[in-house]
Amino acid sequence: MNFASDNAGPMHPSVLDAIVKANTGYEMPYGNDTIMARVRDNIRATFEAPDATVYLVATGTAANALALATYTNPWDTIFAHRVAHVEEDECGAPEFYANGAKLTLVEGAGAKMDPDALRQVIIGTGQKDVHSVQRGPVTITQATEVGTLYSLEEIAKITTIAKEYGLKTHLDGARFANACAALGCTAAEMTWRAGIDMVSFGGTKNGCAGVEAVIFFDPEKAWEFELRRKRGAHLFSKHRYLSAQMEAYLSNDLWLELGAKANANCARLVKGLEAINGAEIPDAPAANMVFALLPRAAHRRAIQAGAKYYLFPADAPLDGPDDDLIRCRFVCDWSKPDTEIDQLLALLRG
Amino acid sequence: MNFASDNAGPMHPSVLDAIVKANTGYEMPYGNDTIMARVRDNIRATFEAPDATVYLVATGTAANALALATYTNPWDTIFAHRVAHVEEDECGAPEFYANGAKLTLVEGAGAKMDPDALRQVIIGTGQKDVHSVQRGPVTITQATEVGTLYSLEEIAKITTIAKEYGLKTHLDGARFANACAALGCTAAEMTWRAGIDMVSFGGTKNGCAGVEAVIFFDPEKAWEFELRRKRGAHLFSKHRYLSAQMEAYLSNDLWLELGAKANANCARLVKGLEAINGAEIPDAPAANMVFALLPRAAHRRAIQAGAKYYLFPADAPLDGPDDDLIRCRFVCDWSKPDTEIDQLLALLRG
Amino acid sequence: MNFASDNAGPMHPSVLDAIVKANTGYEMPYGNDTIMARVRDNIRATFEAPDATVYLVATGTAANALALATYTNPWDTIFAHRVAHVEEDECGAPEFYANGAKLTLVEGAGAKMDPDALRQVIIGTGQKDVHSVQRGPVTITQATEVGTLYSLEEIAKITTIAKEYGLKTHLDGARFANACAALGCTAAEMTWRAGIDMVSFGGTKNGCAGVEAVIFFDPEKAWEFELRRKRGAHLFSKHRYLSAQMEAYLSNDLWLELGAKANANCARLVKGLEAINGAEIPDAPAANMVFALLPRAAHRRAIQAGAKYYLFPADAPLDGPDDDLIRCRFVCDWSKPDTEIDQLLALLRG
Amino acid sequence: MNFASDNAGPMHPSVLDAIVKANTGYEMPYGNDTIMARVRDNIRATFEAPDATVYLVATGTAANALALATYTNPWDTIFAHRVAHVEEDECGAPEFYANGAKLTLVEGAGAKMDPDALRQVIIGTGQKDVHSVQRGPVTITQATEVGTLYSLEEIAKITTIAKEYGLKTHLDGARFANACAALGCTAAEMTWRAGIDMVSFGGTKNGCAGVEAVIFFDPEKAWEFELRRKRGAHLFSKHRYLSAQMEAYLSNDLWLELGAKANANCARLVKGLEAINGAEIPDAPAANMVFALLPRAAHRRAIQAGAKYYLFPADAPLDGPDDDLIRCRFVCDWSKPDTEIDQLLALLRG
Repeated sequence: MNFASDNAGPMHPSVLDAIVKANTGYEMPYGNDTIMARVRDNIRATFEAPDATVYLVATGTAANALALATYTNPWDTIFAHRVAHVEEDECGAPEFYANGAKLTLVEGAGAKMDPDALRQVIIGTGQKDVHSVQRGPVTITQATEVGTLYSLEEIAKITTIAKEYGLKTHLDGARFANACAALGCTAAEMTWRAGIDMVSFGGTKNGCAGVEAVIFFDPEKAWEFELRRKRGAHLFSKHRYLSAQMEAYLSNDLWLELGAKANANCARLVKGLEAINGAEIPDAPAANMVFALLPRAAHRRAIQAGAKYYLFPADAPLDGPDDDLIRCRFVCDWSKPDTEIDQLLALLRG
Repeated sequence: MNFASDNAGPMHPSVLDAIVKANTGYEMPYGNDTIMARVRDNIRATFEAPDATVYLVATGTAANALALATYTNPWDTIFAHRVAHVEEDECGAPEFYANGAKLTLVEGAGAKMDPDALRQVIIGTGQKDVHSVQRGPVTITQATEVGTLYSLEEIAKITTIAKEYGLKTHLDGARFANACAALGCTAAEMTWRAGIDMVSFGGTKNGCAGVEAVIFFDPEKAWEFELRRKRGAHLFSKHRYLSAQMEAYLSNDLWLELGAKANANCARLVKGLEAINGAEIPDAPAANMVFALLPRAAHRRAIQAGAKYYLFPADAPLDGPDDDLIRCRFVCDWSKPDTEIDQLLALLRG
Repeated sequence: MNFASDNAGPMHPSVLDAIVKANTGYEMPYGNDTIMARVRDNIRATFEAPDATVYLVATGTAANALALATYTNPWDTIFAHRVAHVEEDECGAPEFYANGAKLTLVEGAGAKMDPDALRQVIIGTGQKDVHSVQRGPVTITQATEVGTLYSLEEIAKITTIAKEYGLKTHLDGARFANACAALGCTAAEMTWRAGIDMVSFGGTKNGCAGVEAVIFFDPEKAWEFELRRKRGAHLFSKHRYLSAQMEAYLSNDLWLELGAKANANCARLVKGLEAINGAEIPDAPAANMVFALLPRAAHRRAIQAGAKYYLFPADAPLDGPDDDLIRCRFVCDWSKPDTEIDQLLALLRG
Repeated sequence: MNFASDNAGPMHPSVLDAIVKANTGYEMPYGNDTIMARVRDNIRATFEAPDATVYLVATGTAANALALATYTNPWDTIFAHRVAHVEEDECGAPEFYANGAKLTLVEGAGAKMDPDALRQVIIGTGQKDVHSVQRGPVTITQATEVGTLYSLEEIAKITTIAKEYGLKTHLDGARFANACAALGCTAAEMTWRAGIDMVSFGGTKNGCAGVEAVIFFDPEKAWEFELRRKRGAHLFSKHRYLSAQMEAYLSNDLWLELGAKANANCARLVKGLEAINGAEIPDAPAANMVFALLPRAAHRRAIQAGAKYYLFPADAPLDGPDDDLIRCRFVCDWSKPDTEIDQLLALLRG
């Protein structure tokens, strides 16, 4: 009963198979493998972006930090939501890769930037000439860190404001597939057609072992990105094993299928949580993650039976009044069996 | 006929098997997987170092840069051989990770630091009080970038000088197994018993897909390393796949067996090269790599038949007098079949 | 009628005299001048801190950034008020000098950290183990960026919280003298006796040409600071001219006298502003700076007569309804004549 | 008898006067002072470069590091002579300001880059695609760190090679005036007419208290430089005191007059040194500095009488055979009286 994260599950069998198949003979290293050539084509086709520049790295943090750094001067600030992964969960990797740039935090309900709030912080930045840090890119997370989604219109609102001020836009798509599946849109619609300039396209949380694509719709900084990736020690010599994962992930839209499956798993869980006496679900869970306020008694039963999930705050005690609400995060990946979901729900219901 | 690098070959079947076996159920992320606990024990046993701190990353550049940065202030300089990988092949990753530290180059034949030269540059550094950069760690590469080896005595000479000046010592062991197998020594003898403080223990070039261990014999900076690794985006969420590779690699000393096999392959190649009319082999090849000066005609035949290997300079032309000597690098990994070696030699012999 | 900033005025005659007197013969460079030895003693006496480490730099930004960086790891975050100079007016210098560290913003009325708000952000930082940036020093500005003051008790509350979590504390004293004069306390009382670990002691805004002292009450990181200062290019060869300014500034407590004079000038201005029909003064001006909301008509008259001061936002138009309130900042230094203050007030009154 | 450095002497009276005169009334801060407007014009006239961008900073290290960083990516390497000030005397400031860029050292007699050696290291850099650091700017020091000079032809040879590879060129002119005076050329001839793109034009060592101009002949990166200067904490609020120094320094070509005077002082010293029994002067001293190999007995007499100058190595002992040659550096600034020179020579002669 591990609902801690979508990074706790295994690779999808097709992804594993691809690694096994790739494990033969000699291949040119450092991204010059024959598989990567196909991956590049496939991503361009998937995103309907024939000129896009495509790179693979092994962690989501690397994808975000390298992509953002490529368009952030050291004296710039990146506009991100207060609870964005780049702000809260990367130990300052964006600041490190961008040589000391800042992050400016934007508020908004449901972990989504409020467009007016974004406009206000953009206006407020760079007012003081050389004394201020300057305006850098805007990054949004889709699906968000609390499992909500920007609609296509909401993305477009954000990017329109960014472009009004000449700013680049980045989409942290560690859970890109979940978002795309939930919105029922294409990869192109959720990105460049909505004004996004660069994407971290996640595989790791959705059936791969460790692979993320960085996609720039404008190739102008391709060479710079390659230097940054190498200098950051993220260029794999045996790159074929990244390529193989991504090829399998793209093949027959496996990414979308797995994203949809994870969402369905979560929907089953949400439905059950809503039925628990006293439980509250503040944000509208739209992808594969749900934050629920659960009565301590329910929570206690689940934990004591060995269920794993995150609490906020992390040290919320099991002891205390039964009816107190505890903030719990549950994440489902594509591999989560219905039986396990139902088992958790049974425990919570008591 | 790919002799370009030991990063061009596949995983050893046991390493692949370990990945396949690891691909089941849920595991705690970020190095808290159950496999990693065993890997830690196994590395400590292999190095006879029960207190060592052990971490895994996926690239050799990450291992080197993160290990060195942990013991290098931004105003320090790292002492490295002029042709060390950290100097020539990492696009400045050590400087990046050490926040702008320098490298001071040490001369020495066969890509090995001359102890007197090392002492001289150490003395010459930091003479000018606050105006000079300060003395940082000493790093050596074993096996070296030209396929030679430091003897245990030679390592001890280097580390003794370093310690005389209070400096830490690092061993870049991207080809650790080849060196250990060639010297017929233990991992402990080649490292802490010879005065080494930290090691990059390579798996990628010797049968793994992408895994390197960073080992500190003194655990005092363990927490700092963990923060640096995360901040550098090198902490894997699905860490089990790194752990699995390393577990298989350590099991029954597979690492040593594969290192010895690669060395034997290279010895076969060297023997054949020595027999080629006009060929010269300047350094004594002792591991799995050989630099040879080959008559252009021999080289031309091999290239035209599709052989792959590196030239120095990279753009040495095929056209020109037949007898001109061309500097060629050949690398054998464990997987190289005798037939392929013999085929290359036949071409070179003409 | 220049009320733009206390950096717009001249040196006090005593400070200029000291430069003139210093301009004879040869002096050892880089802080080894004979004047600096006296300055060191004098600052230690002034702060009743015989073991303090004392350094001079030429800009306030350098003092803040170098002091903070000395106690901030790259993966740490500095706790600062939302409108602190280090956040708003230094183009990311603290982040640059601290190799990519973050700033975490703390709220609080009158540009002063609310102690509870500080505690909350400290608790909220570093909850996520290696994924979070870690807790770094707490910095407060005294006098604040809006001309208010922390009482000694308020400083102690902040530093007590910081120490509860093991954090270092820094006081940005670009306007140290104004604060000390207004509070009627000693330099020791406002710093180490109230729990402050390091101070930027400003001279530039208060009668000097360009000199600030960095004072560490614990000398443990003295050598590191010296390396950081040199590496940051802030070590002056002809250091005697910094020393001379500071010596004159300390002599007979000139710093305190000038701070008191500047405060008195501002008090005269505030009294007049309060008498203006429709004007509002939101924060309690306690040092040498006042933010006032002035009817546009009053503001228009002053500007059109050539008065200089800052507006927030900077581009607030002169055109518009007469009664609209415009946010204006006025700063007085020690040199401001009463006549100029009265002239401005006369214009504003209309 | 202080011959330690040209940073040990006082300001020229005209420069001091300018500071005194500037010390009246209010001036716009941060480089917007009225004096700076005249300085800008005067430097453009002096360099016959009407489009040049001109900035002032207070230290030579700041001038060099900021200028170079503006044209150096973090993954680039700067080509500098092995004994250049940027390599040996700035504690890694160029690496810090350029966010971790490297320096690649070029050999050459008399502290001057050998053009062939430069070409070879340029060719040798960036051979390995993304694995290598990339080629950055070429910087030369004029006059050099051993008091020699590049002829105009020699400068042109260096810059021609740089431009052949598309590299920018920088001239570290901490002793610009001495070089210009010695060569009898114009500022334009020694810089842009010889292919130099950016200049650190030193005032500090030649009669000022602390001011250096950074001059870019192409203004394309002006705004970036301004941000870098502020972020580096090198933008002075009371900038008028930098401007005043520079204005006096430029007025009636005082800079050239003082450079010539310092050179003449040194020539007098050199002539005397050459006459000392057993003394050797390896490099041809052409500006205001001389390195001499002096018999220990001569050196001992001077030191024991209180003379100050630098030794290489710094700890060369006074005890030992009288005839051993000790490497001594003597520097004369414009203010050095003949009597002091003669007094030193008398001591050395014995």
